[in-house]
Amino acid sequence: MEKLIKDGEELNRTLDRMAHEILEKHEIDNTLALVGIRTRGIYIARRLMEKIKKITGKDVLYGELDITLYRDDLSQVAEQPVLKATNIPFDITGKTIILTDDVLYTGRTIRSALAALSDFGRPSRIELAVIVDRGHRELPIKADYVGKNLPTAKTEIVHIKLKEYDGEDSITLLVKNND
Amino acid sequence: MEKLIKDGEELNRTLDRMAHEILEKHEIDNTLALVGIRTRGIYIARRLMEKIKKITGKDVLYGELDITLYRDDLSQVAEQPVLKATNIPFDITGKTIILTDDVLYTGRTIRSALAALSDFGRPSRIELAVIVDRGHRELPIKADYVGKNLPTAKTEIVHIKLKEYDGEDSITLLVKNND
Repeated sequence: MEKLIKDGEELNRTLDRMAHEILEKHEIDNTLALVGIRTRGIYIARRLMEKIKKITGKDVLYGELDITLYRDDLSQVAEQPVLKATNIPFDITGKTIILTDDVLYTGRTIRSALAALSDFGRPSRIELAVIVDRGHRELPIKADYVGKNLPTAKTEIVHIKLKEYDGEDSITLLVKNND
Repeated sequence: MEKLIKDGEELNRTLDRMAHEILEKHEIDNTLALVGIRTRGIYIARRLMEKIKKITGKDVLYGELDITLYRDDLSQVAEQPVLKATNIPFDITGKTIILTDDVLYTGRTIRSALAALSDFGRPSRIELAVIVDRGHRELPIKADYVGKNLPTAKTEIVHIKLKEYDGEDSITLLVKNND
């Protein structure tokens, strides 16, 4: 059973609110950067960047991190996230980085993103913005900006669809039937 | 000016409460481990271990991580925390690890502890217990068990003294004078 959590208009309003939350906490200057994680976090960073530009007229630095769960069957170390491709066209040292991702779940991707960023320099601060926090954290990680807290069972699946990648905007929760 | 936040008896009651919080969340069996960070986190882990033993009659696995801020003047990478010495006499894979430290501040030590642990294996979960959370986080890290939230100015200093290392138990806040 699929349950609609937010439609496209609601998701857009959520992103508007998150852009305003970022603006309440930060001056927009060349020390602030949005860095998107994996596929959908990248589009979320771009949308927040556009919204901030629309409100303030100012640009935010933008980068991309691609961290993918990697199953190493030889060494039995399962699901170690690995850094695949990055595009960070500025020096992160001294910057405030806002990492963006679609869903915050175990926290393992974020831990890997923090480790990866430390190879690029020393940001003065790293914050985290996610569209859905679905709980079940396995690491002591928390988000600074949350689109929606969505308490889920471990068997449930959260789907965030974005126009740029999925052709439509929506957040849905896939609940497995008991039969 | 030094302000007493908790005396020894209050600190002991706080640790009692934290031990009970851990017991509310976890079964005590050989999948649960306390891992102390740096000097004082080690004594905090040992005290929690003793309290859990007193309440349940059961032992918790125990380990030590020594992560120290290290200033590398050659490469200009200042204050990178580095792993100095560890003593983790069990396989952490599949375990629930409760990291303990005295003060949670920027979060950089915890980020390093998470990275260090991932070299030793794959815990199923890592939680964080600290005596004082003084705010000013520079990374999206949060503690699961907190002795006291103590909002501080960046110029203030929090001192946690423990009998085993400092000869007495106390939490004090050192406030700089304005003169």
